[in-house]
Amino acid sequence: MTTRRNFIRNTSIAGLGLVAVPGFANTSFSAADKLNIGLIGVGLRGTNHLQNLLLRKDVNVTAICDLDDNRIAIAKKHIAEAKGKVPKVFGANDLDYKNLLALQEVDAVIIATPWLWHTRMTVDAMEAGKYAGVEVSASNTLEECWDLVNTHERTGTHMMILENVNYRRDVLAVLNMVKQNVFGEMVHYRCGYQHDLRHVKFNDGKTAYGKGVEFGEKGISESKWRTNHSVKRNADVYPTHGLGPIAVMADVNRGNRFVSMTSHASKGIGLHNYIVKEGGKDHTNANVKFKQGDVITSTIDTANGETIIITHDCNLPRPYSLGFRAQGANGLWEVDGSRIYVEGESEPHKWDEAQPWLDKYDHPLWKKYGEYALNAGHGGMDFFVLNSFVESAKQNIAPPLDAYDAAAWSAVTPLSEVSIANNGEPQDFPDFTRGLWMKRTPYQWMKEMY
Amino acid sequence: MTTRRNFIRNTSIAGLGLVAVPGFANTSFSAADKLNIGLIGVGLRGTNHLQNLLLRKDVNVTAICDLDDNRIAIAKKHIAEAKGKVPKVFGANDLDYKNLLALQEVDAVIIATPWLWHTRMTVDAMEAGKYAGVEVSASNTLEECWDLVNTHERTGTHMMILENVNYRRDVLAVLNMVKQNVFGEMVHYRCGYQHDLRHVKFNDGKTAYGKGVEFGEKGISESKWRTNHSVKRNADVYPTHGLGPIAVMADVNRGNRFVSMTSHASKGIGLHNYIVKEGGKDHTNANVKFKQGDVITSTIDTANGETIIITHDCNLPRPYSLGFRAQGANGLWEVDGSRIYVEGESEPHKWDEAQPWLDKYDHPLWKKYGEYALNAGHGGMDFFVLNSFVESAKQNIAPPLDAYDAAAWSAVTPLSEVSIANNGEPQDFPDFTRGLWMKRTPYQWMKEMY
Repeated sequence: MTTRRNFIRNTSIAGLGLVAVPGFANTSFSAADKLNIGLIGVGLRGTNHLQNLLLRKDVNVTAICDLDDNRIAIAKKHIAEAKGKVPKVFGANDLDYKNLLALQEVDAVIIATPWLWHTRMTVDAMEAGKYAGVEVSASNTLEECWDLVNTHERTGTHMMILENVNYRRDVLAVLNMVKQNVFGEMVHYRCGYQHDLRHVKFNDGKTAYGKGVEFGEKGISESKWRTNHSVKRNADVYPTHGLGPIAVMADVNRGNRFVSMTSHASKGIGLHNYIVKEGGKDHTNANVKFKQGDVITSTIDTANGETIIITHDCNLPRPYSLGFRAQGANGLWEVDGSRIYVEGESEPHKWDEAQPWLDKYDHPLWKKYGEYALNAGHGGMDFFVLNSFVESAKQNIAPPLDAYDAAAWSAVTPLSEVSIANNGEPQDFPDFTRGLWMKRTPYQWMKEMY
Repeated sequence: MTTRRNFIRNTSIAGLGLVAVPGFANTSFSAADKLNIGLIGVGLRGTNHLQNLLLRKDVNVTAICDLDDNRIAIAKKHIAEAKGKVPKVFGANDLDYKNLLALQEVDAVIIATPWLWHTRMTVDAMEAGKYAGVEVSASNTLEECWDLVNTHERTGTHMMILENVNYRRDVLAVLNMVKQNVFGEMVHYRCGYQHDLRHVKFNDGKTAYGKGVEFGEKGISESKWRTNHSVKRNADVYPTHGLGPIAVMADVNRGNRFVSMTSHASKGIGLHNYIVKEGGKDHTNANVKFKQGDVITSTIDTANGETIIITHDCNLPRPYSLGFRAQGANGLWEVDGSRIYVEGESEPHKWDEAQPWLDKYDHPLWKKYGEYALNAGHGGMDFFVLNSFVESAKQNIAPPLDAYDAAAWSAVTPLSEVSIANNGEPQDFPDFTRGLWMKRTPYQWMKEMY
């Protein structure tokens, strides 16, 4: 097992310019320096991370955990094919992950489990001294948001929220434009998760996607656990794919913060309609009352005077869009229509096609590793978020997307729920930094290492 | 002067199919049957209406009113060129319009004056028994909204809010799609006024648009009165171009109503920046504090469970967009990106280009009169809104966009102001129909007469 000291030593080497590329390619890390990773949850998402990890020369996957023997078998097969050492296996019961966390041969964990487990497992990981990466969204309640922050502060262990969209090529190019002041002082943002998930929330209990109207006990994969959140909660239950990128552009928790928010839910008819259409009106699930509105609109006020609209739109037929807008005093980007306007550069009152701007401001990371990342199976944005996690964990330094970010972004779920239940009443965001947002400086996003 | 009785008689003729086309073209109306119209306000907008009226064979412009002699001269010249009778002229002082309203030879008036006069003049017109058309937005305060409704109900005189965007070709095609249930049960709408008005809010006191940073006493045209609303009010002061079309799609006041709303304002920096950039930091107006946020976001809950997002975005550099979305259980239209998705028709998860859909569902009115309307000088959507006003006034029947609509749409301004001032606190809409929305049936929009 590599010690923290080793990582710090290696960091200082990197700082001297002796390490030119990170560990996924040629590297100065010896086998002894490898980061030992445990995977908690090797469902579809966890397996995706596993496959990307197995391509790296600077990590060992030393342990895996899942309740589903089939998923364990698949993961072991992947590891064997990559000529990795046979991992220790956990999953005998719901809490067996704690035995994984007790292993000496685990430095860091990646948590890709159902939402209700995210905070519990991340907290336990930090308590065990394991550098923790957690899939989105991180928390279900405000108390859980605080659990992440308080545990991080008390233990000194780091956690990262693994928001891959923060590493999308257009998102990082626009972040570059924001940082270079192309849009001027920022004023307004939009984002959201607009993704027809009906084929994900329901299946036939055999295939994960595309068929059937079962969920919960009779479903498999995401339908087994995710759909219940649509039954029970009228809230934006999945805010981070949109809000994560915007929070970084707006320096949230680093000179800015979310102050308050109102939320509105439309009627919820999409999931019921889908059940009736695909399963017939006599199917048992046609009687299920879904609390979740089909389109949920939240508007945040920030300390620096920007507004942010977040949309959750996952129950109706529609093409995918994260609905991004980043708007400043000199211009704006809109992902819908793929367009950018910059005063003094664009023809007055006419949109530019976004792509030439995105190419011009391509992020250093994508310039350097884009070709590798985009090769089949290397994950695209997933490569970058994982790379950031591994590099941060190797150095045992604070990751770009930390406990405060995980807490602030995830707080949208419980706050939207209360606002909706109270006719759109504004809800204050807790200041998870306890005032430190005023002195925390923006993360240095424009480097090319990770 | 044509009496109401004449109009009603003519209507019944029309009902028998004896009048094939409305009065703007060949018509059975004799000169004696013409609608006598007075124009209150012949600035740029009023003159536009005047020019379109002068093309019609079924109206006389019998009186005009404006405080500005230059505008009166221009209007008289247009009337003379169209071989119209010399109109009576008013404008000796702020209240001289009341003398116009006292004329026997005025059946109807069109009010195109600064916003602060809209409700006062419309109320006075109804009191005088004149069928009143008022430019957008109709009211500045909630009390004014009630004034429109109460005066209409007490006098029995009709008023129409002249929202031209309700007659935009794409808007009417989408309305047609909504009415034909192409999108299924409706769930969510978006709209707004996103228009860089900096060149309108400021000028050099000589030319209306494009130069200078003066406003108020030193400005001319819109900058003379409109800009002050950005100085004094942090509110969505111009909601109807977006909300009017959506309100009709949602049957607001006719089986549905606006229930409550929250509003958020971003910081306001656009107008100050513009003054500094164009006029220098030492220009007197660089000291003006503008209360209005640059991007104002309001979200309405309706009685039928839809949500509607309205945007006001007029102080920053950006290309024009009204930002429409109409989303239902089976699909949606988004004006940004010009795209439509209809489940079962579109390729799954892929947008269709909107235009073929809009062509297919082209509104009967546009099919019939589109070519005429689009000919140079005939106004496009302005032709249709004016045609609707004239035809409704000739028959002295309730117009498609009535006092209840004017009140409900305009209420967004004062309600957004209070919500913003109270951290996004939800504001209830008054029920301007006093409960009648439950039994009022949707207006029959799909006819081809007006």
